[in-house]
Amino acid sequence: MIKAGIVGGTGYTGVELLRLLCMHPQVELSVITSRGEAGKAVADLYPNLRGKVDLVFTEPDLVSLSSCDVVFFATPNGTAMQTTPALLDAGVRVIDLAADFRIKDVAEWEQWYGMTHACPDLLDEAVYGLPEVNRELIRNARLLANPGCYPTAVLLGFLPLIETGLVDSDNLIADCKSGVSGAGRSANVGALLCETSESFKAYAVPGHRHLPEIRQGLETAVGMPVGLTFVPHLVPMIRGIHATLYANQVKPQDLQALYQERYADEPFVDVLDSGSHPETRSVKGSNYCRIALHKPQGRDTIVILSVIDNLVKGAAGQAVHNMNLMFGLDETQGIDAVALMP
Amino acid sequence: MIKAGIVGGTGYTGVELLRLLCMHPQVELSVITSRGEAGKAVADLYPNLRGKVDLVFTEPDLVSLSSCDVVFFATPNGTAMQTTPALLDAGVRVIDLAADFRIKDVAEWEQWYGMTHACPDLLDEAVYGLPEVNRELIRNARLLANPGCYPTAVLLGFLPLIETGLVDSDNLIADCKSGVSGAGRSANVGALLCETSESFKAYAVPGHRHLPEIRQGLETAVGMPVGLTFVPHLVPMIRGIHATLYANQVKPQDLQALYQERYADEPFVDVLDSGSHPETRSVKGSNYCRIALHKPQGRDTIVILSVIDNLVKGAAGQAVHNMNLMFGLDETQGIDAVALMP
Amino acid sequence: MIKAGIVGGTGYTGVELLRLLCMHPQVELSVITSRGEAGKAVADLYPNLRGKVDLVFTEPDLVSLSSCDVVFFATPNGTAMQTTPALLDAGVRVIDLAADFRIKDVAEWEQWYGMTHACPDLLDEAVYGLPEVNRELIRNARLLANPGCYPTAVLLGFLPLIETGLVDSDNLIADCKSGVSGAGRSANVGALLCETSESFKAYAVPGHRHLPEIRQGLETAVGMPVGLTFVPHLVPMIRGIHATLYANQVKPQDLQALYQERYADEPFVDVLDSGSHPETRSVKGSNYCRIALHKPQGRDTIVILSVIDNLVKGAAGQAVHNMNLMFGLDETQGIDAVALMP
Amino acid sequence: MIKAGIVGGTGYTGVELLRLLCMHPQVELSVITSRGEAGKAVADLYPNLRGKVDLVFTEPDLVSLSSCDVVFFATPNGTAMQTTPALLDAGVRVIDLAADFRIKDVAEWEQWYGMTHACPDLLDEAVYGLPEVNRELIRNARLLANPGCYPTAVLLGFLPLIETGLVDSDNLIADCKSGVSGAGRSANVGALLCETSESFKAYAVPGHRHLPEIRQGLETAVGMPVGLTFVPHLVPMIRGIHATLYANQVKPQDLQALYQERYADEPFVDVLDSGSHPETRSVKGSNYCRIALHKPQGRDTIVILSVIDNLVKGAAGQAVHNMNLMFGLDETQGIDAVALMP
Repeated sequence: MIKAGIVGGTGYTGVELLRLLCMHPQVELSVITSRGEAGKAVADLYPNLRGKVDLVFTEPDLVSLSSCDVVFFATPNGTAMQTTPALLDAGVRVIDLAADFRIKDVAEWEQWYGMTHACPDLLDEAVYGLPEVNRELIRNARLLANPGCYPTAVLLGFLPLIETGLVDSDNLIADCKSGVSGAGRSANVGALLCETSESFKAYAVPGHRHLPEIRQGLETAVGMPVGLTFVPHLVPMIRGIHATLYANQVKPQDLQALYQERYADEPFVDVLDSGSHPETRSVKGSNYCRIALHKPQGRDTIVILSVIDNLVKGAAGQAVHNMNLMFGLDETQGIDAVALMP
Repeated sequence: MIKAGIVGGTGYTGVELLRLLCMHPQVELSVITSRGEAGKAVADLYPNLRGKVDLVFTEPDLVSLSSCDVVFFATPNGTAMQTTPALLDAGVRVIDLAADFRIKDVAEWEQWYGMTHACPDLLDEAVYGLPEVNRELIRNARLLANPGCYPTAVLLGFLPLIETGLVDSDNLIADCKSGVSGAGRSANVGALLCETSESFKAYAVPGHRHLPEIRQGLETAVGMPVGLTFVPHLVPMIRGIHATLYANQVKPQDLQALYQERYADEPFVDVLDSGSHPETRSVKGSNYCRIALHKPQGRDTIVILSVIDNLVKGAAGQAVHNMNLMFGLDETQGIDAVALMP
Repeated sequence: MIKAGIVGGTGYTGVELLRLLCMHPQVELSVITSRGEAGKAVADLYPNLRGKVDLVFTEPDLVSLSSCDVVFFATPNGTAMQTTPALLDAGVRVIDLAADFRIKDVAEWEQWYGMTHACPDLLDEAVYGLPEVNRELIRNARLLANPGCYPTAVLLGFLPLIETGLVDSDNLIADCKSGVSGAGRSANVGALLCETSESFKAYAVPGHRHLPEIRQGLETAVGMPVGLTFVPHLVPMIRGIHATLYANQVKPQDLQALYQERYADEPFVDVLDSGSHPETRSVKGSNYCRIALHKPQGRDTIVILSVIDNLVKGAAGQAVHNMNLMFGLDETQGIDAVALMP
Repeated sequence: MIKAGIVGGTGYTGVELLRLLCMHPQVELSVITSRGEAGKAVADLYPNLRGKVDLVFTEPDLVSLSSCDVVFFATPNGTAMQTTPALLDAGVRVIDLAADFRIKDVAEWEQWYGMTHACPDLLDEAVYGLPEVNRELIRNARLLANPGCYPTAVLLGFLPLIETGLVDSDNLIADCKSGVSGAGRSANVGALLCETSESFKAYAVPGHRHLPEIRQGLETAVGMPVGLTFVPHLVPMIRGIHATLYANQVKPQDLQALYQERYADEPFVDVLDSGSHPETRSVKGSNYCRIALHKPQGRDTIVILSVIDNLVKGAAGQAVHNMNLMFGLDETQGIDAVALMP
């Protein structure tokens, strides 16, 4: 059994991690910390865990965390980087669900996240945990940067095109739509039901923190700078991301075959038949990414539709996937549930 | 492995049964029939099942169904009773998720359901599949009548009071609220998003088919006629039932202790601390019923709050629970998932 | 033109009041104050008012408020009572949309609201602004206590029964359901979309502040103490209250005729045909209360269904109705819009 | 008073038209027809109209319609063209809210709509009723083709760029999102709450009927063929369209000034401050289109955000606007209501 610790398990990413880990046959939940809720039973905050998780939130504490095999950070940005060096020194493997170790260029990270990085020397070692790209590196990672939700949906959608140079990579558009759980579980007027329900809007069009992360992923794949316009929107629903991706094809190729081949061995990427329209509910509560390809009206513009559950494949599920890889378990263990539909 | 067949698996109860059975370690899905969708892959109708269920809907056919160990009917009322006698004769055990075998009084059934019963002689043998009441009978049942969603929530909420004669059973009120999935997956203007979202209403106040079923369950428990007012309402959400139950206490008793004792050994009934307010989302996608008790303002009126997921504990999950009991499996196998929250 | 001021117009009651008053042909919006948003244009906070309201929020200021004919308080409980005496002295008429002047018994008010009342001497003079009960008093009121949302829906539903002594008033049940806007526009985890959407729950069952207000309204009508159980629930929608009311009939009477007669001259109470099921959406954005009556299954239990929009008839619309009465205008002016459906 | 008739008023466009016309000070609703609901009171189908509209649906009948000054068709495509010639001959002015007269090229219309046009000779005369483009033509129109919902949002967003040749018109993208009311009020599994709520998807990516209509509007403005990719999506809400438009700037210009100037005199187009993010709820129930402009990250890609209420500015409200123009009334009469927010 793998002893797992969670730092900061009170948000939506945290409870989702708890939901997955408490059912995982190879994991023993050992400690969960929260400054704000220390002393409170986890199941009092999240009654869906009654009878499944009998842990109590404790104050963050290096000693108890150091006794774990793996520690997950489900914390705000800037927290994991404070404790990670000590945990690594203690032989603990670290999976950060926040953004502390996602961006290789420390200057760019500091600019977008508005703080000084506490351990820039670890950025090189940190592995970007998108299994469909870095599976082998992940197996041996000590420090894993779990991808953001938008980057997961967008990269899986664009990668086959970019890797093969099929499209004009200077003119990519990612029009993305996310459920409200992406905003987290903090007291925030903008995420109230009465502010978000029965409405739809774009946000952060001038610049969103996932932009440099997506760009880095694309540029790593293509080996040169790319031009990307990224527009996120808020959908009046709890879970789900739908990325609608646009690119201009510059070389002929059978796209459907390309995608099916690229993802043939991927347990969590499902390429739908050509002409399909994936729904976010088809992945609700599951770790799958479903993708469909279109070339409307015979034009050169390729349209890719990519859907994930932002809390699973876009966060906690992908973190467990990475843990499975890091500890040599069956990749799909604990995360092969069927989506809840309807 | 238990060979399972499903008749009529295109509705919401059907897909939920598929979701649960395809992950059940002791079940092999063997056949699924649908007159309307014969020839279509199940996963084409329900893409959440892609890669999990590779069955194709077939025309209903007694031969293939007779080769199963158990057949589930996820059909409209009046269908199961047509084929059940032949299946029982063939040694197949039958679980009906519709109402054909729930009411013992055939005249009452025929009045509420507006048709003639095809095999009234089986009504006596049919076991009402509420495990918290009939566990031993269920173990040996050939023919199981799976309870309705409202009756499940209401009976589990009222039973401890009724069984002990603590309340005036001539004056019971069940004010119930259901998500829209209770209306099924048929083309029905009244269940459109634009008709049900951002609105709330009561329906069927003069009389709902679950009224005689609830009354029968209460009267069996108390051994005499009861007076019940049952008012169902439609909630703008997909899943969940919340029953708010009112009864006047006529004998003193520690209610909290009573309920905790009554359900101490029940794996799927969770009595919350006194004063709690269970949310339907705390059971979303799970087989649990959560109950809380109140006596507001020191009055004699007891208020019981009882929540279930209508598609799981109120339908498919309870059916699998019954199958587990009928085949001597661990009761909770395949239905012990944590609710999806948020 | 009536010069109107609003104190605290940043919440949902405030913006609804702005929506109604800015279209009212006899009103000139003169001043709107908000400590938190002073200096900000109203239309920057509420873009639906762009081009309609060009006011800027100002610091609360007795001088500018004193120049108004009427001042509305759309503030938290406990605010209006601080300034009301000075405004009345200055000849301004005051309409409080909060609870400061609703309860006649100051001790009961102080117990439920947890503070000392600042001007208990005004409680006698304050008129409870339910036009269907107090129309004549309202016309001459200097100080108007606008009713709460639940009390409006429940009182209009129960009054004809109570006033005529038709029911056992010692055993009344009000099972009420409200949209989330009733929780206001404050940063509150419990009102996030991800906490309230796709879920349903009861809350405050041990005791809700609207209980003494409803009880007072009923007791005034019947002239003696009543026994009331009040259970509020939260519905995953923005607007609307649905009250499901239960009472045991003790004297024979044609209920439908009784209600139609009682409300025959009321412009905003609509008694539906017997057997109807009013939907909250049928009053969304409008000032109507729609009521339907049932006596299910021939039992003695009367079931009354009463729906309002909590922000209109349950708050801002009723406040404008009261203003119309206080200033001798046509009662329905500015509040006769048709509900938005769908 | 203008005598108005409505053909086919049972859908969402029809009831919205009723809501607006019954409050319009210059309109007398004279007749409303519906084959399916003939004999039923309008207010029985739409209880929000109780006390406001006392008409009864009648069978379509040329005589009664011919007595009107204007007839609105709120019918499925292909209906208006059957009766329009006779009505025009009778001196009645016709406003078609469906697509029969929107496309000038009859062959293209017949291909997209899959039927033969009944009166292609009227296509030239029909005026495309986008007041921001065709105001003067509309004033004198006998036959008005009311624009589609997506075309309204997209054209208002793109027009200033296209008219001035500022962008590469061969590479335009319209990523559009619509509430479910766009699917109408027919019994359609795909529009059930349980199929659309808590989910997001694209649809009709290979080709949607609004594509040729948008293309025609753009090509008319620019005077040459344009290249457009149009991807519609379904949002889990009732009302609202959000168009996210992408175009590559090829000539320098102050965009904000351009839009403000273009729409300076338009009563229903509101250009927000640069950098804003309009929400669909800011126009819910109102006839406004709100637009904001972005050039993210200093790239050449312009991003335009345009929101409308699909049932008002995208259908019934625009139809009333056109009627106002056709009959010489104040343009904004009856359609200047403030959006319902929240």
